[in-house]
Amino acid sequence: MRRESEPSITPWEVSGKINYDKLIREFGLSGIDEDLLKRIKKHTKNLHFLLRRKIFFAHRDLKWILDEYEKGNKFFLYTGRAPSGPIHLGHLLPWMFTKWLQDKFDVELWFQFSDEEKFLFKQGLDFEEGQKWLEENMLDVIALGFNPKKTHFIVDTKHAGLMYKEACKVAKKITFSMVKSSFGMNEQTNVGSIFYTSMQAVPAFLPSVLKNKKIPCLIPHAVDQDPHFRLTRDILPKLGHYKPASIQCVFLPPLKGVLGKMSSSEDVGVIYTTDSPKEVERKIKKYAFSGGRDTIEEHRKKGGDPDVDVSFQYLRMFFEPDDKKLEKIYEDYKSGKMLTSELKEILIKKINDFLKEHQKKRAKAKSQIDKFMFKI
Amino acid sequence: MRRESEPSITPWEVSGKINYDKLIREFGLSGIDEDLLKRIKKHTKNLHFLLRRKIFFAHRDLKWILDEYEKGNKFFLYTGRAPSGPIHLGHLLPWMFTKWLQDKFDVELWFQFSDEEKFLFKQGLDFEEGQKWLEENMLDVIALGFNPKKTHFIVDTKHAGLMYKEACKVAKKITFSMVKSSFGMNEQTNVGSIFYTSMQAVPAFLPSVLKNKKIPCLIPHAVDQDPHFRLTRDILPKLGHYKPASIQCVFLPPLKGVLGKMSSSEDVGVIYTTDSPKEVERKIKKYAFSGGRDTIEEHRKKGGDPDVDVSFQYLRMFFEPDDKKLEKIYEDYKSGKMLTSELKEILIKKINDFLKEHQKKRAKAKSQIDKFMFKI
Repeated sequence: MRRESEPSITPWEVSGKINYDKLIREFGLSGIDEDLLKRIKKHTKNLHFLLRRKIFFAHRDLKWILDEYEKGNKFFLYTGRAPSGPIHLGHLLPWMFTKWLQDKFDVELWFQFSDEEKFLFKQGLDFEEGQKWLEENMLDVIALGFNPKKTHFIVDTKHAGLMYKEACKVAKKITFSMVKSSFGMNEQTNVGSIFYTSMQAVPAFLPSVLKNKKIPCLIPHAVDQDPHFRLTRDILPKLGHYKPASIQCVFLPPLKGVLGKMSSSEDVGVIYTTDSPKEVERKIKKYAFSGGRDTIEEHRKKGGDPDVDVSFQYLRMFFEPDDKKLEKIYEDYKSGKMLTSELKEILIKKINDFLKEHQKKRAKAKSQIDKFMFKI
Repeated sequence: MRRESEPSITPWEVSGKINYDKLIREFGLSGIDEDLLKRIKKHTKNLHFLLRRKIFFAHRDLKWILDEYEKGNKFFLYTGRAPSGPIHLGHLLPWMFTKWLQDKFDVELWFQFSDEEKFLFKQGLDFEEGQKWLEENMLDVIALGFNPKKTHFIVDTKHAGLMYKEACKVAKKITFSMVKSSFGMNEQTNVGSIFYTSMQAVPAFLPSVLKNKKIPCLIPHAVDQDPHFRLTRDILPKLGHYKPASIQCVFLPPLKGVLGKMSSSEDVGVIYTTDSPKEVERKIKKYAFSGGRDTIEEHRKKGGDPDVDVSFQYLRMFFEPDDKKLEKIYEDYKSGKMLTSELKEILIKKINDFLKEHQKKRAKAKSQIDKFMFKI
């Protein structure tokens, strides 16, 4: 059993101060170094700021993905969402990067909506309750601009006619003892949760099954999902499939501070994609943890700390792709030239510009769901 | 852990000498008494010999099923098959009775083909291997003459788009600890097997979900499946459904003796629906355990023992519906007037007459599969 005081990384709970270098060592991930960035750039011409800034900081077998790609064997992308509530900025981060990968490498994306996951793992959650969010969440994904010709939505319960059979093949290779140690399950865990990781494994090889040839799979995801895919990587070769590769990011921090990840369970720390400009302004002003000093005088004299300032981190991780502009903000804030209120104004404007566009696209997305839904 | 020497009744293994009265007590079943038989007869006009002879010997909530029926609330029937090999006479026994129930009560039958079950529970079994048997097994079911307008085949992997969602609702209510004690599972059990009982529960309430009203369910089955349905009965009321009722039979014994049930894993003990008359003759003559004496002289003098004689038991349980004829055979065999060879000749002819008809209908069944398959 994990002791309560230790930082926890399971797909269902992330808390405490997370040391990403330690994660790389403990999870057995590979860091993304300059050589690898250069190699990616060869194909993508430029580097996404999430790569330049090491927000996507680790991977498994990404070099192999590029080897295959260079041999003409294109990979496909796989990511997903467990619908259970509204989408916030933290959700969008890996998906925006996934879209960039799709555009740059011109590859297919399989987007899984695991509409049973939260139902199985959360006490008291009604199945139909989760279904409400399924379509809502799809709108946000579509609004990001994925290529509908190359993007396939699969919904676990709706596509189970395709997926359950494949999930059983995975499940036969996974013992209770394995899920117990990977996910901290016990005798009181329900049998749906115990089975679930088999369903999450399926999109990593479903395109290979459908096209009857081995296709490499690259999974961009936040690091907390690694235990699922570690198990998947162990099992898939036993079924004659490739191990899926992954590229993993850190979490967008909650407004209240740079520890942990943005999570809808703590409402005050979250900016939703449907928030109004006023709500965004209120939340940033009220809740965004500041690295500034107690008084303006002290701030001017000693400067702020951008490394713990959430507004600065949001610019770094999401809203200011221009490295030079970001550096200027960093220096100005650190020197005391820029006040917290000014920094927050910059962020509020950036978020609201982004959300205005996003909400416009989101409003038009409903009619496109059918185009994205994979036809059995 | 169950000790090896104890008779075992799990859905996957039946061995040892089984005491059915003890089963009734230990499983908490109700026996089928004369009052209940009378009440059934009120609706069915006559009583199937499997009821008269207590081959169907126990039930759960059958009185409630009749209460509801008498109020005009018709039940539906649910039974099934895990395709993994050819059908033998032992499989047909509960299905023939199910057909009788369908005809007499004019009710719907939902027939589940759990095409993942054997794959999940048997080491070394290939998924595609099991699929080979799916259609083959359907032919035998159809050949029994079920009403195609009132009979719906559902195949777990093919109908998972309908079933998986409902199975998850069941699964959320079942802990590992529960399946562990019901089915003797352990830490090394695969997560597909652990989940499986949730899929087996679904047909017991799927018609209620589809028709959006509570419909009573009656499951005719061999007693070894009781642990599955005991769990199902515990869970379903928590999901707002009726507990399924059941009517349970003993096993047709293997040729080699009246202990245990006929099982394809022991090939010499089994008569398949596709056996030729010559094969039937050879198997009965060579393997059917005899209650006769060592010599004809001794047999004439002391008589045989029909209670342990497999040929007699086959007549009793399957091939001689006429009680008077059966009694005559019983007396003649017991008195020594009838020799084992004569008894076997009677049985061989009965089986071959039955199989001739069955095989004729079976040959025509292929074109009817589509009519029976439930359309999503």
